[in-house]
Amino acid sequence: MHEEKKGKLETASKVKVTNKDELSIAYTPGVAEPSRVIAKNKELAYKYTIKGNTVAVVSDGSAVLGLGNIGPYGALPVMEGKAVLFKEFANIDAFPIVVQDGDKIVETVRQIAPGFGGINLEDIAAPWCFEVEEQLQDLGIPVMHDDQHGTAVVVYAALINACKVTGKNFEELEVVIMGAGAAGIAIAKMLGRIEFKSDRKVKNIVMLDSKGIICKDRANLNPYKELIAAECNSEQLKGGIKEAVKGADVFIGVSVANVLTAKMVSTMNKPIVLAMANPEPEIMPDEARKGGAVVVGTGRSDFPNQINNVLAFPGIFRGALDARAPRITDEMKLAAAYALAESVKPTKDMILPNPLDKKVAYKVAKAVKKAV
Amino acid sequence: MHEEKKGKLETASKVKVTNKDELSIAYTPGVAEPSRVIAKNKELAYKYTIKGNTVAVVSDGSAVLGLGNIGPYGALPVMEGKAVLFKEFANIDAFPIVVQDGDKIVETVRQIAPGFGGINLEDIAAPWCFEVEEQLQDLGIPVMHDDQHGTAVVVYAALINACKVTGKNFEELEVVIMGAGAAGIAIAKMLGRIEFKSDRKVKNIVMLDSKGIICKDRANLNPYKELIAAECNSEQLKGGIKEAVKGADVFIGVSVANVLTAKMVSTMNKPIVLAMANPEPEIMPDEARKGGAVVVGTGRSDFPNQINNVLAFPGIFRGALDARAPRITDEMKLAAAYALAESVKPTKDMILPNPLDKKVAYKVAKAVKKAV
Repeated sequence: MHEEKKGKLETASKVKVTNKDELSIAYTPGVAEPSRVIAKNKELAYKYTIKGNTVAVVSDGSAVLGLGNIGPYGALPVMEGKAVLFKEFANIDAFPIVVQDGDKIVETVRQIAPGFGGINLEDIAAPWCFEVEEQLQDLGIPVMHDDQHGTAVVVYAALINACKVTGKNFEELEVVIMGAGAAGIAIAKMLGRIEFKSDRKVKNIVMLDSKGIICKDRANLNPYKELIAAECNSEQLKGGIKEAVKGADVFIGVSVANVLTAKMVSTMNKPIVLAMANPEPEIMPDEARKGGAVVVGTGRSDFPNQINNVLAFPGIFRGALDARAPRITDEMKLAAAYALAESVKPTKDMILPNPLDKKVAYKVAKAVKKAV
Repeated sequence: MHEEKKGKLETASKVKVTNKDELSIAYTPGVAEPSRVIAKNKELAYKYTIKGNTVAVVSDGSAVLGLGNIGPYGALPVMEGKAVLFKEFANIDAFPIVVQDGDKIVETVRQIAPGFGGINLEDIAAPWCFEVEEQLQDLGIPVMHDDQHGTAVVVYAALINACKVTGKNFEELEVVIMGAGAAGIAIAKMLGRIEFKSDRKVKNIVMLDSKGIICKDRANLNPYKELIAAECNSEQLKGGIKEAVKGADVFIGVSVANVLTAKMVSTMNKPIVLAMANPEPEIMPDEARKGGAVVVGTGRSDFPNQINNVLAFPGIFRGALDARAPRITDEMKLAAAYALAESVKPTKDMILPNPLDKKVAYKVAKAVKKAV
């Protein structure tokens, strides 16, 4: 399909150019009038141009799907796909922008920002992705790294509903997060109210990276993992995944395939297992159930409870653009998570709505807009 | 219109996302396969992504239409309009990119180039525009400043046909160019075979800027005007427009309104007057005819002989993209000019085809592709 179509996105003209008048209006001299007034007041770009409905989907290709650092060219199909989803789910005109050098991404986004209403950062390696996003928060338009916050919002919504169907109390949850990249850190911050504005938090989080449980004793932690070590893991547990999951309520996997076994799941407490490694999850759903998991979600469409960012980012940006929000705040992310959770009557096999349900984005957008 | 529609361009999806399979192909996991192969061979981006059919329409807004340096926001309606014309006339998916700081435009284009098949530079002030274009010629994709070469190609075609209908010999033409900005310099280079590969040139060119005729005696000329002083004005004429046009065959105006009078035209030799200042030409057509002009062209659609870049840039880029040319060469520009001239059976009132004739771009494209 990618070959036959030569990509997945195109531009389309909203105006006709079939006679002299139409040509004069689309281009010179008709275009001079909006240019003149916008030059005097740049806010009018929202009124007379595409700015207010456009989002740049920006990546340096340094952390693409499960493929790693494959660079800007390799990232292009993914960014195109993302742009397609923006259009299909939220009628946002998104365009892929792949950047040659990762260390120039902040400056590049800053330079091209005038033409866009928002910036969706994508597939940028941790921990650089955190700095990039932070440095761009003063742009005056929403800038969000979807791998962080899109994922965190969907996981948050999934947990709200998983609590409902299991009878667990959100604030009593003992959570294990496997993976300390962009998604893992953002999920931990949102669930754990770490540098995040919320009125509640889970009881405890234990996070693991490829070297095991993150604790204060670990050497050479990056500042983001240091924060996790300081704010999470209340008992300063050490060890690996086996030690981490024992007695825990929730396993959240944003790491690699097949790291969790049915036996480990059996040591958990009425387990909620969200195994989101793609395409192969940390544990296959049948294995997780064998170990006693009560609720199981994955990133895959061929099992129940698909945890897919497309449930969040189109609505978050739709709401932010509609409200012309200067940035995406914690309140907006929380509002998105609650709206997403409330958009379905949850059961064990449906803690989240179908990712193809195109009404969801508009429900999320409405809540996000209200939270601006 | 600009207000009602909130801009003139949108994106559209070439793929459907209505079921799980379609979602999996448009995004994860289906998108992984093209990403993987492109990562190994970036040329395959032309096969599997939109790269090969996209053009960034890039401006810093430093020289927009007749409005001057109005910045990136003010430039946005113009770049959108240009993107619309790319789509309508050559089925190219162009997207406006307005850059915050003019001095960062080279680096910014370099950074975002991987996602585009070509770069159309637009409305960048001279002489910086010359440097910007030159510095980007190593990108490996066609980069063209349309205000320079699009204009030069259309003027060249107009002159070929104006010679046919007046019986003048191209190589005997005495040409006056009023205006020494991007368009003026590029026209002079192409007509005068100055740093330009061609098998013929006009006999002499006299160029004027706002201070009068450019000659070697003038102080503080920028390097581009210095080149003009050295290579043009064979008699090193001094003075103003009155002195310049006396006895000349051709007046080319790329300057400001109402600088040429009927009386001045009457001192010319069977005059060809191309008065392209927009929206008000250097001389109105009826005045030019009063002075004896045989052929009169303007930038306007409400008079015969509209000299409009839309006759050139869509076809030039279409041809360059189809051939996957690494740059736009002089040979390609000349081929475009000849194809454009040959696309109409010229009369005094039709030295160029109607800018709305959508067959023209494909004729130009074919010739350009052949010249790669």
